[in-house]
Amino acid sequence: AVFGATAEKERVGYNILASIVHGGFAGDLYPVHPRLGEWQGLKVYPSLEEIPDTPDLAVIALSEGRTVEALARCGEKGVRAAVCLAGGFKETGEAGARLEAELAATARRYGIALVGPNTLGIINTGANLYVTFYPMRLTGGGVSLISQSGGMGLTMLYRAMEEGLGIAKFVVVGNRSVLDVADYLAWLEDDPQTKAVGLFLEGVNDARRLVELAGRINRTKPVVVYKAGESEGAAYAALTHTGSMVGSHRLYLDSCRQHGIYAVESAEAVVSALKALTTAPRPAGRRVAVVTHTAGPGIVILDRLSRAGAVFPPFAPATMEAIRGVMGENPPVVIKNPLDAAGAGLSPAVIGQLTRAVCADPSFDLVLVIFCLHANWPFPTAELAALAGEKPVVACYISTRAGMAKEQETLAAAGVPVYHSLEEAARGASALMWYARGES
Amino acid sequence: AVFGATAEKERVGYNILASIVHGGFAGDLYPVHPRLGEWQGLKVYPSLEEIPDTPDLAVIALSEGRTVEALARCGEKGVRAAVCLAGGFKETGEAGARLEAELAATARRYGIALVGPNTLGIINTGANLYVTFYPMRLTGGGVSLISQSGGMGLTMLYRAMEEGLGIAKFVVVGNRSVLDVADYLAWLEDDPQTKAVGLFLEGVNDARRLVELAGRINRTKPVVVYKAGESEGAAYAALTHTGSMVGSHRLYLDSCRQHGIYAVESAEAVVSALKALTTAPRPAGRRVAVVTHTAGPGIVILDRLSRAGAVFPPFAPATMEAIRGVMGENPPVVIKNPLDAAGAGLSPAVIGQLTRAVCADPSFDLVLVIFCLHANWPFPTAELAALAGEKPVVACYISTRAGMAKEQETLAAAGVPVYHSLEEAARGASALMWYARGES
Repeated sequence: AVFGATAEKERVGYNILASIVHGGFAGDLYPVHPRLGEWQGLKVYPSLEEIPDTPDLAVIALSEGRTVEALARCGEKGVRAAVCLAGGFKETGEAGARLEAELAATARRYGIALVGPNTLGIINTGANLYVTFYPMRLTGGGVSLISQSGGMGLTMLYRAMEEGLGIAKFVVVGNRSVLDVADYLAWLEDDPQTKAVGLFLEGVNDARRLVELAGRINRTKPVVVYKAGESEGAAYAALTHTGSMVGSHRLYLDSCRQHGIYAVESAEAVVSALKALTTAPRPAGRRVAVVTHTAGPGIVILDRLSRAGAVFPPFAPATMEAIRGVMGENPPVVIKNPLDAAGAGLSPAVIGQLTRAVCADPSFDLVLVIFCLHANWPFPTAELAALAGEKPVVACYISTRAGMAKEQETLAAAGVPVYHSLEEAARGASALMWYARGES
Repeated sequence: AVFGATAEKERVGYNILASIVHGGFAGDLYPVHPRLGEWQGLKVYPSLEEIPDTPDLAVIALSEGRTVEALARCGEKGVRAAVCLAGGFKETGEAGARLEAELAATARRYGIALVGPNTLGIINTGANLYVTFYPMRLTGGGVSLISQSGGMGLTMLYRAMEEGLGIAKFVVVGNRSVLDVADYLAWLEDDPQTKAVGLFLEGVNDARRLVELAGRINRTKPVVVYKAGESEGAAYAALTHTGSMVGSHRLYLDSCRQHGIYAVESAEAVVSALKALTTAPRPAGRRVAVVTHTAGPGIVILDRLSRAGAVFPPFAPATMEAIRGVMGENPPVVIKNPLDAAGAGLSPAVIGQLTRAVCADPSFDLVLVIFCLHANWPFPTAELAALAGEKPVVACYISTRAGMAKEQETLAAAGVPVYHSLEEAARGASALMWYARGES
């Protein structure tokens, strides 16, 4: 059942119906509106009571006051799950808090699993169920995202689309009147489609439960978290957003670390990390080799990964031999790690040979390859894809995003995450190092 | 004159000729090769001596040993500028250092302004002159980029292309055998096309001269710098790249600050900063207002800009009135800065009206507007473009890059920099605040 159906394209009720229809949901759909009659060929029910069946889910796109009433009627009819979209609850002050208490009590009375209120909704690609007022169609995959904010949820989602990541579940938590972040996380723990989880947090009530749960899940499915609210002003802003107390940022970071949860500094970094974690194998340690034809980016990567705990050991003697075998006995560069193949490395075949040699070197746990977009030198995509194996290879194709979009799919299929910026590549490699199997 | 002309598409000599031809250079072009005869319809001269004229510039795409010899012949003929592409000089050790000393002495003997060696080359869009082995065609504009590394230069250049920035000059400095970073910067100081400069540095010999010069230029043309080499390993990597001593990172940051130069933490941040600085007017101070329909991103922006010294004052009473006039007397949100218009803000017209009201409020020096890509709610592009005025407006359109690409041009023309991520928008706004006209 979808309350708030309307023919007006700019309204939330229209867009939530459009989203569900456009998303391809195969189950029965019951729009509710007292007078609308039909919506784009779909029968609209004048009231919940006239729906011949008991819907599994109620989607309530009504104002805050009417939301409470509609939820009660859902309870009466036996509906056991609801998504409440309206804001205007505890985030607005005392009157809103009273209304929200009423909403929560209603949900508890009838045993309704309540998403929101004040939420952008949820997506389950496995069921083609897009319960949001942002109509879209996602590629399915192993990444699930939970966000306390709609805008930050979209930030992660749009970035995931750009990075070519497939989505399992997407949840905007909103006010956590009944279901809290930990409940959604517990659901994802048991979800076979979910391989890794990204979280955006403002602040939660059950911080201890959340962190302990995330820490446990994290052992089998990486959980990457970005929490806003480090500044003082942000605390008040969060309170008036989803009624959240942000707590101490330092305490939060410490408890994440204690439970092995990977905490990052932006929504973009969540996605870059998830890309590496769902594409590449886990490294055995933090010993990194870099192969490139352009030294400057190697220096930048060295800076960034050093900060994340990477070490850059020298090549083993056999690897030095192999490199000389490719580049000649006296190449016009110093052979060292990061390896700058200079002019020779403009050939994708050479980059492939060098990367193969470095991957075979037991001194390294992770190999990072940097190549720049060029009109006549193709990317070493086939060469890197052929290297897929035990050891993670992370690629950085310095280019516009459009310039490397074609390569992304091939490399992802081969287990090589590719980034179009050093910054993102460093974030991906850092995430892999966080989840290294042991110390090197 | 272009030494190293060849018909082999994968070689540097081919690509540098292709780049110059493709770029549309209108002057005379003299490829040099002992036996080639012609190159895609262009006459190739067997030697420099047979060129009927004295070229203004020699482009030398030969091996390191032959480069020195070719430069001497250029000197004899009266050529007064040269770009030397080969690596294999002081970055490789003692023998290379001796060869480079010879190269520099040759240049000095004949008074040749020498770019490189070990460089990707230079671009001057004003003259359609693309002296690099990365053939491309750029949109002209006010941004000039100087990089000590080819790969980092391309990183900034590709990012600038994505962000819709027009380029004036692009220089990859390489080994600084004769011309150093400060020389290029001095050239840009007098270049009427250049409005702002981005610098990527590894390490220079004349650090004091560079910083003082950059500080002076910075008063009229913003200079944004990213310097690699904060880690210990990076120091050695830089030495074996362009023979640079990186020096103390802390000392570098302190002297930038002392001279008012804006130092950032990545190549991407250089471009985000330049985008704001060449698009928006300078703010009077650091008092920021945020207008959005999605509160979470407002909290994130508050965190990030607070770190950069922003303050978020409350709205003036008249502004509160105006906001209530747009949103109604009792909107289902707390009216405060950051302003979350919630459901009402999904309409571009409402975002436009609210932004206009906030822009008129003398409590603020900069207004940041956040809007999320949606299938049925268009971006408030026309509304924001209409607000162009004294006060900087920075837009963040949360979306894929492709999703907001069309809007970018319209907004840029109106003086509104638009970013597709909060992270980049925060970088843009932070740059504007750095260059604020006074303290608030």
